[in-house]
Amino acid sequence: MRATIKDIAAKANLSVTTVSLVLNDKPCKIPEETRRLVQKIAEEMNYHPNQLAVGLIKKRTQTIGLIVSDISNSFFAGLTKGIENECRKNHRTLIVCNSNDQFERDLEYITVLASKNADGIVYCMSRDTDLERFYKVQSLLDQFAVPYVMLDRSFDLPGVYIVRVDHVTGGHLATSHLLGLGHRRIACVTGPMNLVDSRDRLQGYRKALAEYGVPFDEELIIEGTYEMESGILASDTLQDRDFSAIFAFDDMMAYGVYQGLKKHGLSIPEDVSVVGYDDIFPSAILDVPLTTVHQPIRRLGEAAVRKLLAVIDNNGDVEASSLLVPELVVRKSTAPPRRG
Amino acid sequence: MRATIKDIAAKANLSVTTVSLVLNDKPCKIPEETRRLVQKIAEEMNYHPNQLAVGLIKKRTQTIGLIVSDISNSFFAGLTKGIENECRKNHRTLIVCNSNDQFERDLEYITVLASKNADGIVYCMSRDTDLERFYKVQSLLDQFAVPYVMLDRSFDLPGVYIVRVDHVTGGHLATSHLLGLGHRRIACVTGPMNLVDSRDRLQGYRKALAEYGVPFDEELIIEGTYEMESGILASDTLQDRDFSAIFAFDDMMAYGVYQGLKKHGLSIPEDVSVVGYDDIFPSAILDVPLTTVHQPIRRLGEAAVRKLLAVIDNNGDVEASSLLVPELVVRKSTAPPRRG
Repeated sequence: MRATIKDIAAKANLSVTTVSLVLNDKPCKIPEETRRLVQKIAEEMNYHPNQLAVGLIKKRTQTIGLIVSDISNSFFAGLTKGIENECRKNHRTLIVCNSNDQFERDLEYITVLASKNADGIVYCMSRDTDLERFYKVQSLLDQFAVPYVMLDRSFDLPGVYIVRVDHVTGGHLATSHLLGLGHRRIACVTGPMNLVDSRDRLQGYRKALAEYGVPFDEELIIEGTYEMESGILASDTLQDRDFSAIFAFDDMMAYGVYQGLKKHGLSIPEDVSVVGYDDIFPSAILDVPLTTVHQPIRRLGEAAVRKLLAVIDNNGDVEASSLLVPELVVRKSTAPPRRG
Repeated sequence: MRATIKDIAAKANLSVTTVSLVLNDKPCKIPEETRRLVQKIAEEMNYHPNQLAVGLIKKRTQTIGLIVSDISNSFFAGLTKGIENECRKNHRTLIVCNSNDQFERDLEYITVLASKNADGIVYCMSRDTDLERFYKVQSLLDQFAVPYVMLDRSFDLPGVYIVRVDHVTGGHLATSHLLGLGHRRIACVTGPMNLVDSRDRLQGYRKALAEYGVPFDEELIIEGTYEMESGILASDTLQDRDFSAIFAFDDMMAYGVYQGLKKHGLSIPEDVSVVGYDDIFPSAILDVPLTTVHQPIRRLGEAAVRKLLAVIDNNGDVEASSLLVPELVVRKSTAPPRRG
C-alpha cells in the first residue's frame, strides 16, 4: 500500500500535524532532529504526496495537455517527443490527446483537459478547423481560462500565442532550389488550402517564381490532403500537363508522387525532380533519397513548451509569435531538367 | 472564468447544497422543476466538475498512464495511437510518458504516475531492463499498488499481466518463407539478446531450420540493437561469410541492411533476400518493398487497455497473458536464391 502522512506519523510516534508541517516545509519550531527523523522515514517508506490534494490547494497541477492531430504521423510523433522532453526538463507531466484530425474532438479534449485542471495546453488544431470553428475553440478556451499555445497550425489573431515554422521561407527555399537548377515548369501538390501552413508554402513558391520572372500557372497547382494517396493522384492529374519538377508540400505526398511517377514510367531525377517538405526519417533511406525542407521538429516542440510555461507564469513580455526557420536538405531527387 | 457550483447557485437563486445535490445526482426530494433549472443553468455556464476533487473522493481518476520507450519510433507511435483510441472509447484520459529507453526513467515515471493517482499503467519497459532491474520496477509498482499491464516487452513471471505478439510464431513465419524459397544460409540480425522478444524470434528461426533439417550456424547470427545503424554494420560483418538471405528482427534494421548491401554492390532480391519485422509504413513504399512480419500494432494497444481496465475493475478471471498472432506480408525483397 501507498504510504500516507498517517503511516509516517505512526512509525515516528509523532502527531500527523508535526509530520505534515515538516514534509510540506512549513515554517515552524520543530527541532532539527525530529525534522530529519521524519524525512528519513518518509524516504524509507517511499512517501510521495498525493498530487490531487496538492493540486486542489495550489491550483496548479504541474500538468500540461497536448492536443495533437495524429500521433501516428512521424511529424507529430517527433513533435510529441520534443514536447515531452521539454516538459520533463521542467518537471511537468504531459497528457497527450490525439484528435484524429477531427474538430469535434478538439472541443472534447479541451473540456477533458480543463476538468483535469491542466495548467496549460499545447494545441495543434485539426486539419478541418476553419476560422469560424477556431472561434468556437477559442471561446471554449477563454471560458475555462486555460492558457494555450498554438503549435504548427494556427490563425494569426491578436492575443493568440503561436509557435510555428516560417513556411513562406520553406516554400521559397524549395522553389528557388528547383529554379536554380534550371526548372521553369514546377508543379505543386499543396496541402488543404484552408490551412495557413499550406497557403504560406504557396506564397513562398510564388515569391520565388516572381524573383526569377517565371509566370505563375494555375494549371500546375494541385490541391492535396497531406496524405500519401493525394501524391499518387496528383501525378496522374499532371500526366497531360507540361512540367519538369514537383514540389510536394509534405514528404508523405512526395512518397505518393514517387509511386505515381514510377507507375507512369518516369524516373527521378532524370525525368522529373521532386522536392518534399518535413524531412521525416524515410526520406533519407529511399532508393532515391528525397531532397526536402527540413522542419526543426524537436526544437519546435521545445519552443512551444517554453512559451506555454512563460504564459502560465505570466512572465510579462511573452512574444506572441515565434517563427522557426527551416532548412533545405539536398539529396538525390533533384537535378537539372532534361534538355528537351 | 470557470463556472463553479457557487456561480450556478447564485444565478439560480438557490443554495449551494441544493445545486450540489442535483449535479451530483444524489437521492433527495428536490422538485423536478428545480432540478431541471439547475441542469439548464449548469449547461449554459458550461459547468464541469473539478476532476481533482472528484478523484480525491472516488479514489479513481479515470486516468491511464502509458510508459513508452520511444514515442518517435513508428512502432511505438502506432501503439500509442491504438492505446489512446481505446482509452477514449472507455472515457479514460491517457498520460503518455516517454522513457527514451532508459531504465532510470521507468522508475521515475512510475513514481510520477502513482503520485498523479493514475488508475493503472500500460508499461512498455526500456530496452536496458534486465530481470534484476525488472524486480526493482515490480517492487515499486507493488508498493504503490498500481495495477499494470506489460506491453510488447516483458518477462514471463507469475502475477504479471502481459499483452504481446507471439514472436516465436513471427520468427518461424519469416524463416519458413525463406526456407520455402530454397534458401539454406539465412543470416539473422537479432535485437538485444537480453530481450525476450528477440530471443523468441530466434527460437522461431531455430524451430523452422530444424523442421527443414538445416543445421544452425552461430556464424550467421549477428546481435543488433533494433536501430538502423546496426543493420548497416551487420551487412559489413556478413561480407566474408556465406549467406543468401537476411532476416532482420525489425524493419529499421532491415532498412540498414538495404543500405549496407547497396554499399557492397549487392541487389535485393537478386543477390540477397531480405525479410523484416514490424511492417511500419516505409516498408511498403521502398523502391524494393520489404517482405516483413506484420505486427498487429493497433490491436496490440487496444488489447493492453482492455486487459488493464479488467485488472483495475478486478473482473475476476483476467487471463495473465494475451498473445496476438502476427502475419507475413510478402513483397518484393524475397526471391529464390541465385544458383551458385
